[in-house]
Amino acid sequence: MVLDERLQKQLEFILEIDKEKNILRQTHLSEHGRRENDAEHAWHMAIMVFLLKEYSNQEIDVMRTMQLCLIHDLVEIYAGDTYAYDEEGKKSQKEREAKAEEKLFSMLPDDQGDYMRELFHEFEAYETPEAKFARAMDNLQPLLLNHSNGGSDWREHGVSIEQVRGRQEKTKLGSEALYDITNQIMEENLKKGNLKP
Amino acid sequence: MVLDERLQKQLEFILEIDKEKNILRQTHLSEHGRRENDAEHAWHMAIMVFLLKEYSNQEIDVMRTMQLCLIHDLVEIYAGDTYAYDEEGKKSQKEREAKAEEKLFSMLPDDQGDYMRELFHEFEAYETPEAKFARAMDNLQPLLLNHSNGGSDWREHGVSIEQVRGRQEKTKLGSEALYDITNQIMEENLKKGNLKP
Repeated sequence: MVLDERLQKQLEFILEIDKEKNILRQTHLSEHGRRENDAEHAWHMAIMVFLLKEYSNQEIDVMRTMQLCLIHDLVEIYAGDTYAYDEEGKKSQKEREAKAEEKLFSMLPDDQGDYMRELFHEFEAYETPEAKFARAMDNLQPLLLNHSNGGSDWREHGVSIEQVRGRQEKTKLGSEALYDITNQIMEENLKKGNLKP
Repeated sequence: MVLDERLQKQLEFILEIDKEKNILRQTHLSEHGRRENDAEHAWHMAIMVFLLKEYSNQEIDVMRTMQLCLIHDLVEIYAGDTYAYDEEGKKSQKEREAKAEEKLFSMLPDDQGDYMRELFHEFEAYETPEAKFARAMDNLQPLLLNHSNGGSDWREHGVSIEQVRGRQEKTKLGSEALYDITNQIMEENLKKGNLKP
């Protein structure tokens, strides 16, 4: 094809990120479905942003928050998914993801590569209102699916309430109102024995 | 759980749309992968919007265009996917989708149900700059995947260049520059015998 260099880079990147659809998570789809992949998870989060934005603790730029959600797992194309409660995997996660980030975002024209890096680091840093709300979606989305399946993902991995609390505590930073739901779900699953005490 | 009615409706809707991940399209993932589903397709389109927005014929509201992409196939949860070149299926498509729309969006609080209906109809009507660009993404995304697989989706269905042209002509309404790529891809696949003359 006859393409200018900028557009060629953009199209090659777009084709490359197709691979995110093959990165499987530990969460299962509702109705005891198959394992979810990163692209599906990101799509779900981005819709949740504009349906639940009224519950954000602080006012957010909705578009930017949606973008954070859509791209936050792209580095896993090369670095793989690290399960939220896999303490061993988490030790090497930063390094694997930094390498993946360099490889992936340098495919884009410089200005867009920089923009994607900026979004990725903003999400990781958990500081802006947008990153806090996007992370709340990142926590709430698998919780809703898992709860709808009777907590089977937790049972399968023998997860304890402390582990879930540690992660979900941060939902509070993005949304007190949604943390209240999270908390109810955790307590209910503890009572039912789906989470270890 | 103890929830107010509004939040309960929102969370039920969010869980319901999880089903979009099970709606399979005719397009296959790159590297001769499995069939793509609607949620993956929508995620890909929404990222393409902000990476390719500079090629839109008219200025667009990027957030709204992303939202159009993310939700445009939701009605297929009940109505099923209709292949772009399935002339029989297309006859009943409107009716099936209208029923599905009513069922799905009435799950939400009224204001949000109305907003989703508005987005869905905007996408379908092909009139605003945002809808035109979103539809260009809807056409370009499977074309890129299929082209990367040597046109195998077209060969499988015995698709002709006239059929593809009929659909892709409309990409021009959203982006002349991206239609140029589309056109090159179509011609190349015609030459290689992947599209029937």
